Amino acid sequence: MRIIELTEEARTNILENLLKRSPNSYGEFEGRVNEIIENVRANRDAAIFDYTKRFDGADINAENILVTEDEIKEAYEKVDEKLLTVIRKALVNIRKYHEKQRQYSWFDSEESGIILGQKVTALEKVGVYVPGGKAVYPSSVLMNIVPAKVAGVKTIVMTTPPGKDGKVNPATLVAAKEAGVDAIYKVGGAQAIAALAFGTESVPKVDKIVGPGNIYVALAKKAVFGFVSIDSIAGPSEIMVLADETANPRFVAADLLSQAEHDEMASAILVTTSRDLAEQVSKEVEGFVAQLSRKEIIQKSLDNYGYILVAESMDEAIATVNEIASEHLELVTNNPFETMTKIRNAGAIFVGEYSSEPLGDYFAGPNHVLPTNGTAKFFSPLSVDDFIKKSSIISYSREALEPIYKDIVQFAECEQLTAHANSIRVRFED
Amino acid sequence: MRIIELTEEARTNILENLLKRSPNSYGEFEGRVNEIIENVRANRDAAIFDYTKRFDGADINAENILVTEDEIKEAYEKVDEKLLTVIRKALVNIRKYHEKQRQYSWFDSEESGIILGQKVTALEKVGVYVPGGKAVYPSSVLMNIVPAKVAGVKTIVMTTPPGKDGKVNPATLVAAKEAGVDAIYKVGGAQAIAALAFGTESVPKVDKIVGPGNIYVALAKKAVFGFVSIDSIAGPSEIMVLADETANPRFVAADLLSQAEHDEMASAILVTTSRDLAEQVSKEVEGFVAQLSRKEIIQKSLDNYGYILVAESMDEAIATVNEIASEHLELVTNNPFETMTKIRNAGAIFVGEYSSEPLGDYFAGPNHVLPTNGTAKFFSPLSVDDFIKKSSIISYSREALEPIYKDIVQFAECEQLTAHANSIRVRFED
Repeated sequence: MRIIELTEEARTNILENLLKRSPNSYGEFEGRVNEIIENVRANRDAAIFDYTKRFDGADINAENILVTEDEIKEAYEKVDEKLLTVIRKALVNIRKYHEKQRQYSWFDSEESGIILGQKVTALEKVGVYVPGGKAVYPSSVLMNIVPAKVAGVKTIVMTTPPGKDGKVNPATLVAAKEAGVDAIYKVGGAQAIAALAFGTESVPKVDKIVGPGNIYVALAKKAVFGFVSIDSIAGPSEIMVLADETANPRFVAADLLSQAEHDEMASAILVTTSRDLAEQVSKEVEGFVAQLSRKEIIQKSLDNYGYILVAESMDEAIATVNEIASEHLELVTNNPFETMTKIRNAGAIFVGEYSSEPLGDYFAGPNHVLPTNGTAKFFSPLSVDDFIKKSSIISYSREALEPIYKDIVQFAECEQLTAHANSIRVRFED
Repeated sequence: MRIIELTEEARTNILENLLKRSPNSYGEFEGRVNEIIENVRANRDAAIFDYTKRFDGADINAENILVTEDEIKEAYEKVDEKLLTVIRKALVNIRKYHEKQRQYSWFDSEESGIILGQKVTALEKVGVYVPGGKAVYPSSVLMNIVPAKVAGVKTIVMTTPPGKDGKVNPATLVAAKEAGVDAIYKVGGAQAIAALAFGTESVPKVDKIVGPGNIYVALAKKAVFGFVSIDSIAGPSEIMVLADETANPRFVAADLLSQAEHDEMASAILVTTSRDLAEQVSKEVEGFVAQLSRKEIIQKSLDNYGYILVAESMDEAIATVNEIASEHLELVTNNPFETMTKIRNAGAIFVGEYSSEPLGDYFAGPNHVLPTNGTAKFFSPLSVDDFIKKSSIISYSREALEPIYKDIVQFAECEQLTAHANSIRVRFED
């Protein structure tokens, strides 16, 4: 891996290079995606069956779009027993963590007859998108469904593209069933997002769409935002390790590669105050890459978006970490919890040398759907928050309104909204 | 106001009619908005100064784009003393309510050395958009700035279009100053949104953009979503009153008009189980409209989007209320708190006959920036939540990782991610 002195200029260049990967920069696909969305809005089932034939090579119709109980049973027979066991163990942890995110309605009252509060309600219908293709990530199915379930969403539907044989991957089906999905539809791509946003004869309209996908899926989600809610738009995976001279170079190298293997667009960055560590990590990386099964993807990812940055001071290193706002951040310093207090921007923070990133991907409990591409500056991990919404509660008695009603009339009149003023005044007209 | 029997068909037609007002349906403006955004991204200050000249007729440059302390002082001299007093009173209530929305970091630990948690961090920089034009809403300035301030946002900047004389409305300036804004820039429209999203020489790039605006502003916000965060996209204002035979028709009529006066696209709907009330409200509305200063806007709004719906039962009425998911909902029934328990979808719920909607606009404390156009099914009122974000915290000791590390390796291998498996295995290689 290349080792670079962390200067202001280097930081700016790296940031620019990373942001190139943003799904916002793919304007060229937008026309195509909008066309798909309009077609699905107009022709509904007919459009999604047609796209599924063209893009996935599968014959899907109103009779077979919904995954049946028999298909799920078949999936349980096919899936590795060991995977099922580990899915169930992971589910316990994921549920336990997300249950702590529950939010509650509250109110506050005053004796004159004022009640002010906030009512928390779960969304009613949610759609989870699960990508198809060769890479099958049952963990991602769990991470998207569990928070909706914990929030109390009444209906959770899933869409995923079928294979040519019209089947869905068994591990995906088993994970969805274990997590508590209500229905699974065989449709993928931008057409699935459009179907969930507007509804078709077969696919129900939902209130929110979550889940990762390719560039078509990401752009379709952005296009339907406002008609429905969406989670944040996922970009390629990222890991950043902030380490000092106390870090174990072998651990750091292995962790960097764990994200680099996802995708040629994935990014793996070490920021360290130790030139020694930088060189050892670079050497360890070389050693590992040669042995790993996804070595070609890893090598491309490292060449494109992999960096080892040597900083003059820990403050400078931390400033860069906050500026890049990585999806995953490992802190491997002498006092990692102290370092953590200085971190403003990161999707998930892994504290200490045994807190390896894949622990969070599969098992620990926190969600692995995290803000990417610098969006950790303003977005949060997927959570129960994503599946609830709030309503303000306002209640005043006559006794409470009377002493302040003239203030409200005053304010309304300053804004030249006389019907507003009238609606207050009418209550005290005699 | 027209009185309609609430049938399934009527409900569907009304819903369709209301959704026509969605800012998502204005595809024709998108090209123009994208052009403005691209121009501001490329030419920065030069582009925004040029647009401000063309659209607002004002000469703005790097020297005068920032509102000065002198201009603010001048605004305080110009503004009505009574308005300042009522702004200060309202601020006390708004702050008090929003302080209750604060969220806190938490963690949970296990003795084997596991720490899992969630760190809450305020966004660093936020941009508040304030529309210009004839209608001046200092209340809206307060409602957008206070939650950011309470959340702990470090820098809150505001943009608003200047008048031809290069000045900003004094009430806007005073409200912004009282609420605690850090800087105010004289730029409006889609060009202001682009400037806040990407930064120019004069206007800083922010993490999130909030605030209402015309169709250009709404579409620009949607276009920059992902580069920055945005609040929900505001549509025209709405009020729905759910009332039974116990309601005072004069109060109900006045409240319906308080929203109808906002805009020809605003919607005012009464749903009632009482035909008697329906007729009395319709009559009262006629009486009021004749006297109100904004009667032309009100009449158009009522003709386009005003309805009195007579339902056969309270259950049917409530189902319609939940389906339409209004921005503002007043409950004027015999037992309004019991009715409230059945409401799933509404931006703000005003409970009881003295809880008139304008009380919430100006004074009570809850935010008046609310989801419109059916989006209360999945969006929430603007709140402190909008100005914070979360990071997961994951920390495992060696002792905690050892008993489960083979499960993680197993899961990773099932997903064919061997570098993930390696990063766990490397920690136990001897």
